[in-house]
Amino acid sequence: MDIEIKRALAEIVGSGNFTDDLIDLISYSSDASEERHRPEAAVWPRTTADVSAILKLANEKRLPVIPRGAGTGLSGMAVPIKGGLILDLIRMNRIVKISLEDRLAVVQPGVVYADLQKALEPYGYFFPPDPASGSVATLGGNVATNAGGMKGAKYGTTRDYVLGLEVVLADGSVLRAGSSCMKCVSGYELARIFIGSEGTLGVITEITLKINPKPLAVATGTACFDDLAQAGRSVSAIMRSGIIPSVLEFLDQETLRAINRTAGLGLEETAAMILAETDGFTPAEADFQMDRLVETLKANGAAAVTRAGSPREAERFWKARRSVFNALSSLDRNLLVEDVTVPLSRITDMLLGLKEIGRRRHLRLAILGHLGDGNFHPNIMYDGSDPDQAGRAELAVEDIFKLSIELGGTLTGEHGIGLTKARFMPLEHGPTALRVMNALKRTLDPNGILNPGKMGLEL
Amino acid sequence: MDIEIKRALAEIVGSGNFTDDLIDLISYSSDASEERHRPEAAVWPRTTADVSAILKLANEKRLPVIPRGAGTGLSGMAVPIKGGLILDLIRMNRIVKISLEDRLAVVQPGVVYADLQKALEPYGYFFPPDPASGSVATLGGNVATNAGGMKGAKYGTTRDYVLGLEVVLADGSVLRAGSSCMKCVSGYELARIFIGSEGTLGVITEITLKINPKPLAVATGTACFDDLAQAGRSVSAIMRSGIIPSVLEFLDQETLRAINRTAGLGLEETAAMILAETDGFTPAEADFQMDRLVETLKANGAAAVTRAGSPREAERFWKARRSVFNALSSLDRNLLVEDVTVPLSRITDMLLGLKEIGRRRHLRLAILGHLGDGNFHPNIMYDGSDPDQAGRAELAVEDIFKLSIELGGTLTGEHGIGLTKARFMPLEHGPTALRVMNALKRTLDPNGILNPGKMGLEL
Repeated sequence: MDIEIKRALAEIVGSGNFTDDLIDLISYSSDASEERHRPEAAVWPRTTADVSAILKLANEKRLPVIPRGAGTGLSGMAVPIKGGLILDLIRMNRIVKISLEDRLAVVQPGVVYADLQKALEPYGYFFPPDPASGSVATLGGNVATNAGGMKGAKYGTTRDYVLGLEVVLADGSVLRAGSSCMKCVSGYELARIFIGSEGTLGVITEITLKINPKPLAVATGTACFDDLAQAGRSVSAIMRSGIIPSVLEFLDQETLRAINRTAGLGLEETAAMILAETDGFTPAEADFQMDRLVETLKANGAAAVTRAGSPREAERFWKARRSVFNALSSLDRNLLVEDVTVPLSRITDMLLGLKEIGRRRHLRLAILGHLGDGNFHPNIMYDGSDPDQAGRAELAVEDIFKLSIELGGTLTGEHGIGLTKARFMPLEHGPTALRVMNALKRTLDPNGILNPGKMGLEL
Repeated sequence: MDIEIKRALAEIVGSGNFTDDLIDLISYSSDASEERHRPEAAVWPRTTADVSAILKLANEKRLPVIPRGAGTGLSGMAVPIKGGLILDLIRMNRIVKISLEDRLAVVQPGVVYADLQKALEPYGYFFPPDPASGSVATLGGNVATNAGGMKGAKYGTTRDYVLGLEVVLADGSVLRAGSSCMKCVSGYELARIFIGSEGTLGVITEITLKINPKPLAVATGTACFDDLAQAGRSVSAIMRSGIIPSVLEFLDQETLRAINRTAGLGLEETAAMILAETDGFTPAEADFQMDRLVETLKANGAAAVTRAGSPREAERFWKARRSVFNALSSLDRNLLVEDVTVPLSRITDMLLGLKEIGRRRHLRLAILGHLGDGNFHPNIMYDGSDPDQAGRAELAVEDIFKLSIELGGTLTGEHGIGLTKARFMPLEHGPTALRVMNALKRTLDPNGILNPGKMGLEL
C-alpha cells in the first residue's frame, strides 16, 4: 500500500485509529477459520463519516476493504485474501437507543451481541437469534452473516429482526434503508440485500432491530436413543406435531463421549441424545408443548426421556451443550466444524449419510445440530499435520456438501460461504442465480473493492 | 401491438389463453384502485415455460408486461399505465405440495390465499399473513406486494414466510432462489429482492412458504374510549407490556357510526374502540396475555372493557370489523383507503394528526388500523364528482403522507407504492436509496419491460 494512501487513511480516522504495525497485521490475517492472509493496514473508524471517507478513497485507489467485527466467522469471510485494508468496526460500539415503546433497538455495528442482550434484560426483552459466538461476536457481523443459533425453529434468524440499516456503499455514499416501523412496503426492501452479504456489498454502520418480550416460562427435556434413525425420525415427528419448540438440539454418541471425557458430566453414551426446550408466557404453554414433545419422543422409540424438574436440573443439560466445542477440539489436533441444513423431512437421511461418510473416509466424525430447523454441524476431528488425514477430511467435507444438496439442502445454514465454501457455490446455485448474484455485486461495487474474493463472486 | 407479436403470443400459450377482445381489455384496465389504462392484449400462461417464452419475446420487442393476479391491489400496481401485455397468472393455480414434514407449502402464484388456508386447515396448520383481501387475492400477488394484515404484530407479513421462489427474469431466464430449508445463508438472498417488488423485477412462478401450527386457544376483548389520545396511548402501552397480541385493531367514532348504520350491530359510538385478540397453544397462554392487555387498557383510561366469553360473542366483534369497508363505502360516492405506518410510540400523534387533517380539509375521515404494528388506514369519504371535494381529498392524502414521514413513519404499511404513491417516494427515501432502487431495476430489467411506470422508478 502506497505511503500516501496510508497517510490519507490516518488523516481520516486519526493516527490512533490507524495501524500498519506487523503485530496488528498478523492478528488481522485470520478469523475463526483456518484461512490466513495478511492485510496491508487496518483502521478503526468511529463514525459513519469516517467509513464514508475511507470507502471513497479506497474506491478511487482500487484498494480492497475488508469490514470485520470480532472475527468469529468460521468460513473465512473476514480474511483479507487479496490484502488491502481491514476496516474493524469494533470502536463503533454504541447502543444508540433502546425503545420499548417502539419495540426496537438501534445499535452501531461494533456492539457485542451479549451486550445488547444484557442491556435488554432489565426490561424483560431480548433479541432472539442467539448465535453460539454471541458473547464476543458483534451485531454488524451478525447482520452481515445473517447469524442464527439454537432458537431458529421458533424465533428465526437475524434477518427476521432487521427493520432498517444504514450502509455505506462502495463509493462512500450513505444509504438509509428500511425504517423504524413494524410494517413497511415502500419501494424495494434494500436493507434485505445487505443481510448475509458478508461485507461484499456495503459496510453496515447502524442497525435498527426489532426486539421481543422474553418468554416467562421454559420447560426442558432430554431423550436418549439407542438408534440413530429413530432419533432422526422423532425430530421430524416433533416438528410436524403442531407445536414449535424453542430449542431442539441433537448430540450423537461421539459427541456425548467427548463431553464426558472433558466435562465429566456422566451423560449416558447412547447413540443419540436430544435436548429440547419449549417456552411461553405461562408455564401451561411451555408444559403443553413439552408434554406433546415427550409423547412424540416416546412414540418414536426414545429409550429414556427425562424432564428437568428445575432450572438447576435444566442447567446441567445446557452445560453439556455449551461444552461441546471445547470437548471436541480437545480430541485431536484439528477440528473442522461443518454447517449444512436439509429440509426437515430429510433429517434421518442426513444423519445416516453423515455416519456413512465418516466410515467411508475413516474419520472421526461427531454430529450435533440445531435440528428444529434441520441445521447440522458435523464435526471432523483429525490431525492436519498428516497429509493423508487432511486429504480425507477435505474429501469428507465435499461428500457432506454433495449429500446435503442431494437431499434438497444447502451448503450453509448459518456459517456463510466466505472463502471455505466459495468453490462449492455451483453445487447449490444454478447459472442464473450465480449470474444475478454477480450482477448485484457489480451494480453495488463496480470496482470490486468490498471484501473481494469471497462467496464465489467474480469481483 | 403488432399483429405478428399477438400471433406469436397466442402460439406460446395457445389461442384459448390469449385475448385482445375489447371486453377483456377493459376488464384488465383497472385493479382495486381508481387508476385506469387499457392494455393491448392479455395472456394466461399455464407453465413457467410459457412465462419464460413470453418474457423472452417481450424483451426482444420492448413490450411492457404487467404481471397480475386477482387485481386486489389498492395502489394501482396492476394497471397497465404504459399499455402492453397483461400477464394474468390466475391459471397457474396449483397447490404443488403441502409437506407438514418439511413445515412448508409449495404453490403456484395463482393460488388464492383462502384456498391455501382451506387446504392447511385439516392439518391444524396455517399461513399467517391474513390479508383483508385473502378470499380472492392470489399468493403471487401476496409475495409481489409483501401482503400483510391484522396479524402482523405477532406473525409478521408475507416476507417472513417465503423460503424460496422461482422467478422468470425479464430476459426469460428462470431463477431458482432460496431453498426448502428453514435456515440458509448460501450466497445473496435473491428471493428477498422480489418480495414487495410489485412485478417490476421478475415474474414469480412458484413459491415455497413456511407454514405454522395453528394456535389452539384464542381470547378476545374490546375496549371503548371516550378520548382518542387515551386510546392511542393504551395501544402503545400494550405493545410495551411484555406480551404480543395476535390482533390489535382500532376503530374510531366515524367508523363505528358507519358500521351501526349499515350492519346495525348496536356498537357504542364512543371516540374509539379497540378489538384485541391473544392466542397460544393453551387457554392459559391466551388468557394470561388478555389479562395483561385488559389491565393495561383499564390503567390507560378505557371507559368500558369487555371480554368475549365465548367464540360466538367474539364473532360479533369480528363481524363489526369485517363490515368496515362495506359500511364506509356506502357513506359517499368515493372512498379513499389510505395506508401509512408509524413507529409504535407515535400512534397517538398520528391519531390526533389525522383528526386535525380531516378538520383542516373539511373532509369526513374515518380511522381504522392494525395498531399492533402501527399500521393506520385513514379513510376519506367524499364525492369525487365534485372537483372541490376531490381536490381537498388529494390534499389530505398529501398531508397524511407528510405527517407519517414527519413522525418517522412510512408511505405504506401493506398496500404498496404502485402508481398512486409513486410521486411521493422522495418524501420517504433519500437520493442514495432512490439511486440504488433504480440501479437494481436496471440490472434486472435493463429494457424496462416489467410493469413500467410503477414505484417511482425511472424505467
